[in-house]
Amino acid sequence: MYPNSLKNLIESFKLLPGIGEKSAERMAFYILDLDEEKTDFFIESIQNVKTKIKRCPICSNITEDEICSICADKNRNKDLLCVLEDPKNIFLFEKMGSYNGYYHIIDNLISPLDGINPEDIGLEKLLKRIKDSNFKEVIIAVKPNIEGETTSLYIKKILEGLNVKVTRIASGIPIGADIEYIDSITLERALTDRKEIE
Amino acid sequence: MYPNSLKNLIESFKLLPGIGEKSAERMAFYILDLDEEKTDFFIESIQNVKTKIKRCPICSNITEDEICSICADKNRNKDLLCVLEDPKNIFLFEKMGSYNGYYHIIDNLISPLDGINPEDIGLEKLLKRIKDSNFKEVIIAVKPNIEGETTSLYIKKILEGLNVKVTRIASGIPIGADIEYIDSITLERALTDRKEIE
Repeated sequence: MYPNSLKNLIESFKLLPGIGEKSAERMAFYILDLDEEKTDFFIESIQNVKTKIKRCPICSNITEDEICSICADKNRNKDLLCVLEDPKNIFLFEKMGSYNGYYHIIDNLISPLDGINPEDIGLEKLLKRIKDSNFKEVIIAVKPNIEGETTSLYIKKILEGLNVKVTRIASGIPIGADIEYIDSITLERALTDRKEIE
Repeated sequence: MYPNSLKNLIESFKLLPGIGEKSAERMAFYILDLDEEKTDFFIESIQNVKTKIKRCPICSNITEDEICSICADKNRNKDLLCVLEDPKNIFLFEKMGSYNGYYHIIDNLISPLDGINPEDIGLEKLLKRIKDSNFKEVIIAVKPNIEGETTSLYIKKILEGLNVKVTRIASGIPIGADIEYIDSITLERALTDRKEIE
């Protein structure tokens, strides 16, 4: 029904997360009417993201520079290293604003069933970095599922003997959530990890 | 906080209708991880929409061909011409499936306050088309606001004396809508245009 190129653009927009047929159609028609300058900006932005952004050789954060802005910042807390599984989580932490240590991105979570073993997720790089630095605490902030737990325990194990505390961020009831809608595994964890009210 | 190219891509996505900061961020990160083939398809789709799509010289529908597929289709109902204000409305009509006449897109609606006068919306082309054809009915399906009404009345006027019936699609309560949420102008129109139950 649509001209071919419009149909292809609708298909392209449908690739994007959370975009269905209707929204993709609206977006494609929007592009059809968009002025040349903005269209060029759009296309260039996509191209630049794919060509200019690389991984920081220290922490694997995304960056356009030799070293990412966080690793390059000497004023952060040199005692803390936070291990994340995805560069975009760095931005969540930075938006939160109450963490000012450094980060380290691992490539994946250990998942033997999917063929992802400890040697596949870049842990030697993490180990070397910690050995070469003076971090006092490694905070693991990966998904709190089986793969995340396995990965956390494995990291804890390979860091044994190095003078560094290994912690993981708390799991439990999200602030403001209704307890009746919380799954029982989360509830169990929240109960186990209960803290004395001070 | 984000690398420059990622920031620009987020801004680009925010141009799209209905896309706010959060969705734009998700989309930009999605593009960051998208494989090369799909990225190229995305960019090409945008470029093709801007370069290949032109207006049908007969009805102003969008098309990649000399003449749009609807004008080129000789099996449609030659008695009916539906006047719309935007090519995308053609696709709404076609999806509905119960209209099989032809279409004509006018460039705008008459709006003297915005400096849009009858001579600015391509009505001579419409008039010439109707004179040169044998349409028995011209169905006006533009927005039912003041500009739409003015435009409809003007079209009715310039078609006077030609042997063609001029109609407009009905305004009223949308099917399934709660009457208590309907504005009073719509309600008034629905009352005026009431039909005898047969």
